[in-house]
Amino acid sequence: MEPKFTASEMMEFLDQVFPQVRDDFAIDHLDGETVTMRMKIDERHLRPGGTVSGPSMFALADVAAYVATMAPIGPEALAVTTNISMDFMRKPEGGRDLIARGTLLKLGKALSVTDVLIYSDGVEKPVARATLTYSIPPAR
Amino acid sequence: MEPKFTASEMMEFLDQVFPQVRDDFAIDHLDGETVTMRMKIDERHLRPGGTVSGPSMFALADVAAYVATMAPIGPEALAVTTNISMDFMRKPEGGRDLIARGTLLKLGKALSVTDVLIYSDGVEKPVARATLTYSIPPAR
Amino acid sequence: MEPKFTASEMMEFLDQVFPQVRDDFAIDHLDGETVTMRMKIDERHLRPGGTVSGPSMFALADVAAYVATMAPIGPEALAVTTNISMDFMRKPEGGRDLIARGTLLKLGKALSVTDVLIYSDGVEKPVARATLTYSIPPAR
Amino acid sequence: MEPKFTASEMMEFLDQVFPQVRDDFAIDHLDGETVTMRMKIDERHLRPGGTVSGPSMFALADVAAYVATMAPIGPEALAVTTNISMDFMRKPEGGRDLIARGTLLKLGKALSVTDVLIYSDGVEKPVARATLTYSIPPAR
Repeated sequence: MEPKFTASEMMEFLDQVFPQVRDDFAIDHLDGETVTMRMKIDERHLRPGGTVSGPSMFALADVAAYVATMAPIGPEALAVTTNISMDFMRKPEGGRDLIARGTLLKLGKALSVTDVLIYSDGVEKPVARATLTYSIPPAR
Repeated sequence: MEPKFTASEMMEFLDQVFPQVRDDFAIDHLDGETVTMRMKIDERHLRPGGTVSGPSMFALADVAAYVATMAPIGPEALAVTTNISMDFMRKPEGGRDLIARGTLLKLGKALSVTDVLIYSDGVEKPVARATLTYSIPPAR
Repeated sequence: MEPKFTASEMMEFLDQVFPQVRDDFAIDHLDGETVTMRMKIDERHLRPGGTVSGPSMFALADVAAYVATMAPIGPEALAVTTNISMDFMRKPEGGRDLIARGTLLKLGKALSVTDVLIYSDGVEKPVARATLTYSIPPAR
Repeated sequence: MEPKFTASEMMEFLDQVFPQVRDDFAIDHLDGETVTMRMKIDERHLRPGGTVSGPSMFALADVAAYVATMAPIGPEALAVTTNISMDFMRKPEGGRDLIARGTLLKLGKALSVTDVLIYSDGVEKPVARATLTYSIPPAR
């Protein structure tokens, strides 16, 4: 599918919907089925021991799935997370950005399903994985 | 099971392990199988529209499951989240604290499993539910 | 909520929709929010070592959530499972029926969410837990 | 990682551990990180309407994750499913085999995590996805 946003249009759209994400996230790549999002890791995302907190990884997975869902739909619709499953597999390195690779597995009339793998930038094995369901209101 | 912490001892323990939680959370009740945690909702937890953000609800579920797991073990061990599944069912009300009721379903040698229901304080129907697995290192 | 089925009407309805469940399941209790289903354990549900197979426990959780969802809706609608998360916590005993206690946490226009705890009949601690989302077509 | 089994050695091993799977499953591909398993669809896996039942898809995901976990470990160990999350996205076609592609995301000392995508043979879009955690006893 053709995306209805470029990466920079999507960042502007995110900025209106979630103003607090601007400082934390960047879109490295966006097409109609996959997205690569970067979380710019900063002191406030860290836990003692220099690792990234769970809520920060959750926020990254959530925004990556939102972007993957909205890219082929366009700006006219809202969507809300209804379900997430997430596995924390390795300790992220505090000194590196986190990279989320999202793949839109399904875009139905009422629901989307997106798989997300999260990596410490430059490290091969994923630190976490998540699958998210977004509910898409019928207004679309 | 007898808990190895009172609620105030647990808050001191949390304070050492997750210093950032002090301002956000309080323990309303704690025994060896269940915990009731309160998230003191504040501007920084809110999303546009006055609802509580997903990462804030994740953080509440995570700390409630951690407290439920550590209560019967005591302070000598570490534990890390390995898995969460979470369903977002209703919009929390921005002007009310969130209340998490955690039930420890299993405490094994290597893993614990905790169910958590999250409510807007004073509202009957839950806004979210989660189940979390904590991995408990063998050092115990 | 008042259920739109008695337990025996629900068994007849299940019989039309899932003819293969008749021999395996019984409804011990049904109201508009909770259901207690019994899985009549038999040779074909067992694994080596005398324990109940994972697919059998999945089938029990799935039918319990279906019954909890349909009870307040009535027979006019179809519903399909879209998501399950399930934790296997203890080995079920091969010689005992399995009992599933389902609680309908949400019944929305498009989705239901049901929590299920599964027990070996007569044993206190649960062997498994599951949460299921059913998608409810708009025809309703 | 080098697998400790060829596909046919793994089938023999499965045969000893889960004798009931022999008729249902075949291994199309196996290496130390991925597995492709085929479920030979037959009358007994079908639901009214000619679609494959949920418990059958669960069984396929479970055995694919088991094979992905055991391939790099070898036959000396046991492993049990502790958690699954699964999304049902499209109706499988009753007349086609199901193909599961499993990817081992983590093999730790105590736990493995495997992602599984399930397809109707010859159809591009996945019908379901699952992530499974296996607990690996320390005997290893």
